[in-house]
This record gives sequence, structure tokens and C-alpha cells, in this order.
Amino acid sequence: MKRLSLTFILTILFVCHSFGIDATVTAVREYRRANEFQFLQDFIKLLSIPNVASDRENIRRNADYLMGLMKERGLKPQLLPPLDEANPPAVYGEWITPNAKQTIVFYAHYDGQPTDPKQWTGSEPWSPVLRSASLEKGGQTIPFPKSGETINPEWRIYGRSASDDKGGVFAILKAFDALRASKIQPTVNIKFFFEGEEEAGSSHLGEILAKHKDLLKSDAWIICDGPVHQSGRKQVVFGVRGVTSVDITTYGAIRPLHSGHYGNWSPNPALILAKLLSSMKDDEGKVIIKNWNDDVEPLGEEEKRAIKDAPQYDEELKRQLGLAKTDNVAKSYLEALNFPSLNIDGFKSGDVGALARNVIPSTANAVMDIRLVKGNDYKRQVEKLKEHIRSQGFYVIDREPTEAERLQHPLIVKFLHLKGGYNAQRTKMSLPISISVINAVQEASDQPIVKLPTLGGSLPLSIITENLDVPTITVPIANYDNNQHAENENIRLQNLWDGIEIFAKLMTLKN
Amino acid sequence: MKRLSLTFILTILFVCHSFGIDATVTAVREYRRANEFQFLQDFIKLLSIPNVASDRENIRRNADYLMGLMKERGLKPQLLPPLDEANPPAVYGEWITPNAKQTIVFYAHYDGQPTDPKQWTGSEPWSPVLRSASLEKGGQTIPFPKSGETINPEWRIYGRSASDDKGGVFAILKAFDALRASKIQPTVNIKFFFEGEEEAGSSHLGEILAKHKDLLKSDAWIICDGPVHQSGRKQVVFGVRGVTSVDITTYGAIRPLHSGHYGNWSPNPALILAKLLSSMKDDEGKVIIKNWNDDVEPLGEEEKRAIKDAPQYDEELKRQLGLAKTDNVAKSYLEALNFPSLNIDGFKSGDVGALARNVIPSTANAVMDIRLVKGNDYKRQVEKLKEHIRSQGFYVIDREPTEAERLQHPLIVKFLHLKGGYNAQRTKMSLPISISVINAVQEASDQPIVKLPTLGGSLPLSIITENLDVPTITVPIANYDNNQHAENENIRLQNLWDGIEIFAKLMTLKN
Repeated sequence: MKRLSLTFILTILFVCHSFGIDATVTAVREYRRANEFQFLQDFIKLLSIPNVASDRENIRRNADYLMGLMKERGLKPQLLPPLDEANPPAVYGEWITPNAKQTIVFYAHYDGQPTDPKQWTGSEPWSPVLRSASLEKGGQTIPFPKSGETINPEWRIYGRSASDDKGGVFAILKAFDALRASKIQPTVNIKFFFEGEEEAGSSHLGEILAKHKDLLKSDAWIICDGPVHQSGRKQVVFGVRGVTSVDITTYGAIRPLHSGHYGNWSPNPALILAKLLSSMKDDEGKVIIKNWNDDVEPLGEEEKRAIKDAPQYDEELKRQLGLAKTDNVAKSYLEALNFPSLNIDGFKSGDVGALARNVIPSTANAVMDIRLVKGNDYKRQVEKLKEHIRSQGFYVIDREPTEAERLQHPLIVKFLHLKGGYNAQRTKMSLPISISVINAVQEASDQPIVKLPTLGGSLPLSIITENLDVPTITVPIANYDNNQHAENENIRLQNLWDGIEIFAKLMTLKN
Repeated sequence: MKRLSLTFILTILFVCHSFGIDATVTAVREYRRANEFQFLQDFIKLLSIPNVASDRENIRRNADYLMGLMKERGLKPQLLPPLDEANPPAVYGEWITPNAKQTIVFYAHYDGQPTDPKQWTGSEPWSPVLRSASLEKGGQTIPFPKSGETINPEWRIYGRSASDDKGGVFAILKAFDALRASKIQPTVNIKFFFEGEEEAGSSHLGEILAKHKDLLKSDAWIICDGPVHQSGRKQVVFGVRGVTSVDITTYGAIRPLHSGHYGNWSPNPALILAKLLSSMKDDEGKVIIKNWNDDVEPLGEEEKRAIKDAPQYDEELKRQLGLAKTDNVAKSYLEALNFPSLNIDGFKSGDVGALARNVIPSTANAVMDIRLVKGNDYKRQVEKLKEHIRSQGFYVIDREPTEAERLQHPLIVKFLHLKGGYNAQRTKMSLPISISVINAVQEASDQPIVKLPTLGGSLPLSIITENLDVPTITVPIANYDNNQHAENENIRLQNLWDGIEIFAKLMTLKN
């Protein structure tokens, strides 16, 4: 880490002030430019530790590594494990600013979504590579630059959690470094909170928060997760969707059958599942389950205005994603995010490709996720889905059917509500802290920023507000095309660099 | 191989004749009983060679191994490779019987269906194990018996191709051994023809047959493949269904998308595929594609009578398979086999289980097989399916869509007609050879045998009749619950023992 000379910093501050560029941003940018090579090295190291929450040994390696990073920085770190220590701990650290009036918790999560390495293109999830551009735009793997070589901000790092959400962890820590190196004093007490099982549904977050209420006392949580707006404009988001998942299995005969000997006679569970899934949505992709939207809390005037003011990006998005038509749930993309969704994450029956065989499979399986909006209760929403399945003539159970049940019920569904659901959350845009955050992010941006009532994605913010009674505001930094949750996850370097500047601004909030 | 003394054989022949038991059957049975231990060893050895047709190296090991077995028996074997020798050869051998008036080709195939070893329960596809009973009935792995220990005929061997169709290869060769050891002269010239890519669609069988017309000159082909009747009664089958397969892919956005950020807006290809598949069949499992049954050749009186005379086994089958209800295509199981079917072999989109993620997948894929009956043409049937997909609003292509196509067509299907289709085939039950075969199998059975116009399964018999203009008759030996084409394929030992007796009778056909 190179230290900048005081004279140099003062010069920069003066120049920026003269030309209307934010002094903090400028100082942080110069520091980053001087240290980009080291930043890349540090980030790759962080990304190289496998981080699926259920991979107990490796997830603990991540936590220990973060402890080390915080110790180096004098952040008095501690692990906050759940009661059952088989589950990932949160990693906590703090920096007390003399005379600060506010305390802000900076949140990111260090675990990532599970992934099948075979589905990645030309690299492995936890062996990050650098590409000249996005894969979709023909980006090629390039060697990591040597010290002193120019680093193109359009390059991307491909690896699990590059964006979601080690990018967040990294931006927060480097923002802190940049302020310290530039001798800029934070204006707030900073608490660092890095969760270790967000992608596994934050099942123990509530427990951890409840246990450490005093330690975590603060005026607001700022959450670094999710992507910026598709237009590339920076974003502040005041809510998130809730989420929960279900696992649905349909049944044919007790064993796979030769399709010649039994085709036309023994029911095919893949067809049964296809018909069931088809019954849930119309041809326009709109959920047609009874009462699905009944308890949605309508948007207020403030939120409607924010959506109206946001860039209308639908046509451009369609072009980029190769879509001739979109689902017809609402008039626009941003409006559609304010309705509960129901999505097939995956389905499988028998085999396709080289392993395909002429059989009638004995089961078919789908995993679906439900995104919730303000007003929905995740358990109630799951009940609506289950009721729909019953209304289609299915006998619904939560385990394998017995032989007697198979012989009695022509249509059986094993329905599992997967653990880890939570509700949507929304913070008022008119709170003083909301306005401070908007201003800080705006000052780190040379374009008007986007303000949104809700992000499409989900974060366990309702768990935070329910346990700590504190507002949460989300400030995402990743490029929107980061392949979050899928194979080939990546982050564009400029987004990482911008993220550091934004979080430095948020650590020097004006009260 | 133990030789039986002439005195012993003569005694047996006399005893059997006195009590009305077929002398050939009795001699073969005694020989088998005396050699069961060695039979098991030999069969395990044959099953241990991996035999997926596309696995070039291993499939060739199978062919070479069979060449060796034939050489030991003095069958003057030769490989009959297709022009492109990358594909599996047929293995041919012959035994000329002095003064024989007829020549019969005995057919089986030595390749097996591809399989995912992970889906097998407690054993591996090509490391056969012995079980005390079927897995479904709680059968446990048991050690192979030592020489001299009693071998229970209800035991089963689990391994790929135990039934389909190395069981056939084995029964044919051991039947020949048993006759030779018992000094019973075959009545016909015997030609052995073991195919190596039946499960891959017999793509080169026509070419091999056409090239070796003279070598393969015969009066009939007897095909050993498929299962006996579900009641356990032995079976002679005069036809088989044709088969062909298609591969269908639907499309969403060009990359997997985060279901929170894009759910309710970007179309889900799994839902699109579910709706497409649902449109092909009604809720009773009946194909509702236009003209699907139009060219079916109706059953004649003789065939209707054979079906009527066969044991009605539907209710028992439903009980055994755990089915409360079956598809409603025809009044009975045996009748349903006489309509063309359309079956989902497998479908897949995204991931389920531990790898499931909250994404909108970018594609969904299904493999379907079509079984054909007399009158259908497999290419015409595939066209009907393709036309149906078009009628559902899809733009149908046979390759990945271009970016321009994606932006123009909301619904796109990549439709591949997989190689290796062929039509159904049926031999008249009134031919002299048909009657001889029925009599021979009846003489090897202590119950009335079942005669069927068609087997549910498919064999490339139309390729044989089209190239060699010779009748084909199928004599299956496997237990009906053999898990053919699926994981945990197995054969019940008694079925293997019975098969040897049946084929010994067929090698001593009365003219």
C-alpha cells in the first residue's frame, strides 16, 4: 500500500475544489490509481477461497481470512457465530471516529451461490480470471498485468462472488483504506458486518443480530449488494424484495420404465409436472394463482415518482438480452418488480444430452423461487401456491409417498418449502439518513443517480429491521450484466473502482 | 465346462420321455445345473466390459471378447464392421449342421444404453453384483457363491446389459454349448449375429446387412431381446414398434438472469417448454397432435385374437408399479402398444437439488422418443410433431438462433431429429417358421406361452426385412422388471436359465 504525500493530497484537494470535483472522490481515486495492481492481487486472493455457505471448512477459511484483513487495519474484529457453530459466522469489525454523531453499519456478505464448475466457460468459479470484456461481447482471457502496466477499467474479473458479494466486501475495506491513506477522517463510527450465509437464506442472521444488539447499535445499515442500473448510472435503493423457495416433485411409476414397453400406458411425471407448471402462469408469464397479488401494498406517490424519474431502459435491455417480447405483468420493467413473482429456477426429469435414454422417468422435480413485495408474507404466499397445486387435483405431501398413497392418488406432489425465506423491506426516502445517503452517492457520480423504491433482488433486510429497528439503505455497485447467481459471474473493474469511491463518500457522510 | 457321460445323458433322456418332459430341455437343464457356478463367472466377465456404443475403445473390447468366445467354440467368427470403422462392428459366427434344411440367424446385441453411474443404487453399471432379490423388494447385495454352493434362481445380477442384451448373447452361446455338451445335434444351420450399436439406433446395421447378403443368407432371424410377459409366462413376439427421437430446446434471454432482478419480466424458457410439452398430450396422456394416429394400420383378426388370448395383467401391473391410474390411450395395456406414442425421456433447465439457484435459466431442453406402429413412417411422424410445434406459435430451427432471430421471434424452438430412427415391423403368425418357433418355445415351457403381434419395445427389425427379405421373430427372455434402459438394470437368474433352454429348443427346431 503506497502512502501519498500530504503535499500531493493538499494539491489534489485544491484542484478538485476549484473545478467542482468532490475532493474525497478525487483523493480516493488517486490512491486507487496508484495501487490498482495491488488491489487486483488482493481481490483475486479473496475470490480464490471457495465460499458456498454449506461448505463448512471453506466458508470458515473465508471468515478467518476476513478476520486477518480487519486485524491488519486495526478494526478489532470478532467472529459472530450462530448458536450452532456448524453454520457460517458473521465477521464484525469497528472503527470509532472521535466526536462522530452517527454510527453506520456497512454490510456485505462473503458467501456465494452454489455453482456447477462444468457450466463455466473457460474458467473455474474459484480460480478467477481476467477477461478483456464480457464473454457475451467476445471477451478473451488475458494474463493479469504486471506491476506498473496499464489496467483497463473495462476488463472484467470472472469468478464466483466477484460481484455478489465479495465485490461489496472488497469495496468497503478498500474505501476505508483509501480514506486512511489520504488522511481523510471518517465522519461516522463505522461498523463492518460481513454475513456468511446470505445466499443460503440468512437462516441464522436474526439469531446473530438479536444476540449482539448492543454491539450492533447504529443509526442505519448501508448494504452493499446487487447491481447498479442497467444504464450504468449509480443507484440508491430503499427496499428489496423478499424471497423464498419451494421444491416440487411429481411421480410416475415406482421405477423408470422402458418407454417402448410402457409408453402410452404408464403416466410420465415430466408431463405431469409440465402441466402443473403451465397451470401457474398464463401465456404472457403472469401468475394466475388465486389471490396471488391480493395483499400487495400499493406504491405511494413518492415511489411512483421515483420510478417515473428513473431511466426507461426496457427496450435497450430487451436488445441486450436477445428478447423479442417480455412477460406482461406490468407496463414496465421497474413496475413489474413491485409484484410478487414465481420463477422456475430449474427442472429435471430423466436425462438429456448424451445420457438421454428411452425411458419414462419415475419422478420429475422443479425448484421455484418466489419474490415478495411489501405487503406479502412469505409463508402465506407459499400457502397460496400449495393451495393452487391442490386445486389442480394433486394430493400434496411433504415427503416421499407411501405405496398405499401411490395406489390411491393418481396425482401426487411432494411439496417442500425450502428453508430461508424472508419478507420484503422498504425504507422511507424522506428520512434524513436517506437524504444524506442520496447526496453522498450523487457527489460520487457525474451523472444523475437513480433512486428506486425497491431492488429486484432480495436481501434479508426485514431480518435487520425486525431485530434492530434501524433503517436500511442499499447502495449496489456491480455491473448489471454480472451473471449474479449463475455461471460466469463477473465484475467490471470500473464498477469496483466506482464502488470504492462511493463507499468512501458514505464513510464521510455529511450529518 | 464339465462333460456329461453318455450313459447319464441316455438315462435322463429316457426318464424325461417317460414323464412327458422335453428331452432336449432336460439335457440342457442338467448341463446348466452342473455348470451354474462357471456360468455365473462367465456372465460376470461379459458384463464387466463397458458397452456404450459411442465408447469406441470399450465397445471394441466387447467385440474382441465375443470373437474369442466364438473361436473357442469353433464358430469361425468374423467382425463385420461398417464402412466407417469408428462405429461398432457386428460379430458374426456360424455352425453348419450336415443335411440341415433351414438356416436360422440368432440375433442379440452386445451394446447397452448409456447410463449415469451415480444413479445406480449400491453398485456400478459395469461392476455387476448379485442380489438376493430385486432392489424394489429389498434385495441385498450378496457375495458370489463359491464353487459347489447352491445358487438360488431368484437371485438377480445387477449390471448394465444384464438383460438388454448381453443376457441374450449369453443365452444363445450357452444354449449352443449345452447342446454340444449333451451331444444333441442342432437341426438347423446356425448363424450368430451380435450387433454393437442397437442402443445407439442401429445406424449402420442396414449398411452391414447389405454388404453381407450372401454370408447372412437364411430362412429366418430369431431375435433375443426384450422381456417376457409380466406374468412371467414365456413369449413369442411377431413384431416390434419402430422408434425415433427428437431433441427440443426453448430459449429465454441470452444468459441466465437473476430471478429477483428479472423475474416477472424476462420470459422463462422452462415455463415455455412446459407449456409446449403440455400442448402435446391431454390430461389423460393421449397425444393430441393433429393426424398423429392417421396412418396406423389397424390390427387384423388374428392379432386381435392373440391380444385377447394373452393374460390380462393390467391391474396387477398397476399394483406392482404403484400406479393409481394409467394413461387413457386404449382400453388395455396390450392395445395401447398398437398406437404411436410420444414420451418425454428427460427434460432439464437450470439446476435442481443442491445446485439450484435463484435464476431464470437461459434455455430449457427435452429429449422425447416416438414409438411407431405398423403403418407409421418415422420421418413423417417427426414432421407431424414439428408441425404441431409451429402451430403453437414457435419459430422452428435446427441450430442455435442468431441474435437477429432472437429479437424477431418471441418463441423459438431448436428441433433436432436425432439419428437412428426406424419403422415398426410385423411377421405373419401363420408362416410355417412362425408355427415352428411357437411350438419350440411352448415345448420349453410348462405354462401356455403368450403370443403377441407386437412388443412394446423397438428393434431394428425393419432394417433386417428391408435388406434381407426374411421374416424375423422375437423370443425375449428377460424378467419384465429388469429396469431395461434405466439405472439398476438386472436379470433374474431363472430367466437366464430358462433362456438357455428356449434357445437350445430353437436350435433344434422341428422342420
